Amino acid sequence: MMRKKIVILGSTGSIGQQTLEVIRKYSNEFEVVGLSGWENTNILKGQISLFRPKVAVVKNEYIARTLKKDLNNSSDIKLLWGTEGLIEISTLDEADIIVVAITGIASLIPTFEAVKKGKRIALASKEAMVVAGEILVNEARLRNAKILPIDSEHSAILQCLKNEPKDCVEKIILTASGGALYDFTETALKNVSIEDALNHPTWKMGKKVTIDSATLMNKGLEVIEARWFFNIPTNKIEIVIHPQSYIHSMVQFIDGSILAQLSNHDMRIAIQYALFFPNRTVNNFSRLELTKIGQLTFKKPNFNKFPCIKLAYQALEIGGTMPAVLNGANEIAVNAFLNSQISLSTIPLVIQYTMKEHKPKYNLNISDVLDADCWAREKALDFYKNKNN
Amino acid sequence: MMRKKIVILGSTGSIGQQTLEVIRKYSNEFEVVGLSGWENTNILKGQISLFRPKVAVVKNEYIARTLKKDLNNSSDIKLLWGTEGLIEISTLDEADIIVVAITGIASLIPTFEAVKKGKRIALASKEAMVVAGEILVNEARLRNAKILPIDSEHSAILQCLKNEPKDCVEKIILTASGGALYDFTETALKNVSIEDALNHPTWKMGKKVTIDSATLMNKGLEVIEARWFFNIPTNKIEIVIHPQSYIHSMVQFIDGSILAQLSNHDMRIAIQYALFFPNRTVNNFSRLELTKIGQLTFKKPNFNKFPCIKLAYQALEIGGTMPAVLNGANEIAVNAFLNSQISLSTIPLVIQYTMKEHKPKYNLNISDVLDADCWAREKALDFYKNKNN
Repeated sequence: MMRKKIVILGSTGSIGQQTLEVIRKYSNEFEVVGLSGWENTNILKGQISLFRPKVAVVKNEYIARTLKKDLNNSSDIKLLWGTEGLIEISTLDEADIIVVAITGIASLIPTFEAVKKGKRIALASKEAMVVAGEILVNEARLRNAKILPIDSEHSAILQCLKNEPKDCVEKIILTASGGALYDFTETALKNVSIEDALNHPTWKMGKKVTIDSATLMNKGLEVIEARWFFNIPTNKIEIVIHPQSYIHSMVQFIDGSILAQLSNHDMRIAIQYALFFPNRTVNNFSRLELTKIGQLTFKKPNFNKFPCIKLAYQALEIGGTMPAVLNGANEIAVNAFLNSQISLSTIPLVIQYTMKEHKPKYNLNISDVLDADCWAREKALDFYKNKNN
Repeated sequence: MMRKKIVILGSTGSIGQQTLEVIRKYSNEFEVVGLSGWENTNILKGQISLFRPKVAVVKNEYIARTLKKDLNNSSDIKLLWGTEGLIEISTLDEADIIVVAITGIASLIPTFEAVKKGKRIALASKEAMVVAGEILVNEARLRNAKILPIDSEHSAILQCLKNEPKDCVEKIILTASGGALYDFTETALKNVSIEDALNHPTWKMGKKVTIDSATLMNKGLEVIEARWFFNIPTNKIEIVIHPQSYIHSMVQFIDGSILAQLSNHDMRIAIQYALFFPNRTVNNFSRLELTKIGQLTFKKPNFNKFPCIKLAYQALEIGGTMPAVLNGANEIAVNAFLNSQISLSTIPLVIQYTMKEHKPKYNLNISDVLDADCWAREKALDFYKNKNN
């Protein structure tokens, strides 16, 4: 059997490393042909000696040269750098699966290029689908590319939807842990410390996404992703607060049945599902034991307490460049919060201001999206610089 | 489009009536060609005038003649009686789907005959699969018949398994409400009144099955059904107590993912699923709202407090005629409890005694099963008559 050839963009991050962990267990099935590690050359070096990819990508030429020396020329690996490098490995002729696990808007262009080449893409980066979902999905249909989610919620939906015709779906129910602050009062929310906001109850993740969990923007962005991943109208996507995060999401069908996917908090399950889709393969990850957990609870989300969700639904309804503006403004605002420049409750105000100022563009191409993203970041900076919150 | 022709055995019982309710909503899709109502001629009369089947079956010739007169000869319906009548309608050439919803071992022969004719069978009667699962499943394979469950738990499993290859299943997790007595102490269980045992927390059902829920034998029988419905080894079938009964069952896959099916307590959902399988069709039944319910809880079943489960697993492991013996002895014991002849905690003792006395037979045909059933009933009667509990 031919092994499937895999490229990982962002192999030194948390998802990238867990992907390699899964691949290592199935070395009869997969072969790593390309890795990108940007600045984390120490980790990347280890990965290169272990997986022996043909190409690796780092941030710039200087890092590439240093790494080459470090590898002692023992390796005949090709070292590339920058966005050009990312595009080159995400479109490698021989690659079967491109795992996209780089953070931020930087994921967009390599993802789009991989789609244009008709690749199978395992997408961990939220931003690509949030800012350019319609473009990616249309292009994927045209090029016979397949975009699969590496994300507990969307993987859950994919598993529940599997082989059920789309017109049987009544709604998608995205579960949300509620983040670190769900039970804070509205007053307490106004004076939240960075530490409080970073104290996520169930998942350990990077700072940006942990703050997005605390504001529930994370779930808003997932609503936008779900819209495109599953071609489901916005009004059929609902959010339910489920603090234990064991049900990763659900699908309600037109006959009143709901299917739910559950597992432990282990991203490797979603990674493995995307790599092997549509098959399932055995692993020895620890199993969810509901009788040990004892209970699962559910609450309605409070959109007034967490206005970021409302903004995400609005951006999706308006469409065009608006989701890109939402995403760009949010990134700036979260960054400002993490730098103690604004309070947590100012984050939605920054986004709202930016969205209000934006005249959305439609019938987009990728550069429209990138322009809107840049515009939104500048506009968002204006808000809190002027207001000096 | 040709309407699917349906026969309902046991149309005047709870499942039978709900099946007709579903069919009435989809009169463009289904046509009732046969009904059996045994002694409930009042209800049957109404069903005959509404659905105009070609044949109806009652208990005996006398009832048939009275009914014919009652129908005022206005109808050209053919009236049959007894087991012969049940066999005739369950093998009607024109019938596409046979809904089997008669209680007790009486369901076995008509089900087997329908299987031999290669029909699609929607099976609500537990007993047929419990006592003769292997025979039915083998014959169904041979005759290209399809046996679908009308039962929340097995319908849930069917939905979770849908299109997943069998070798991906790690285990089936049958949920159990725990019945009326789950939180009783072992001492309290010894002196349970009939009223207490009939006080089921979530489902309204007949007396026999409600007592089976209280002893957890109901779940034991469902384990045996699951074994045959899904061709899953006994050691891969697990029981979890879930008092709210909203998760109707789950399937755990070899990659650590669990799929669960949830809905309100409404048998029409399982009925509709079996009738339309593999499709889903819209209905207006009330929807499950997890945020209103608030929580779902889970506990390990206590096999020592509820030894009937252990006996069911044992009977399945021993195989051959033993499950028929378990089922027959249980029916006698439950009946004795409902007649105040034995205590609730004597039920498993009656079954255990009967199983101990039985020498199982293998390579069965249907009459072996019926013989074992008769033998078990007599033996079980012996136990409590002799002991005079």
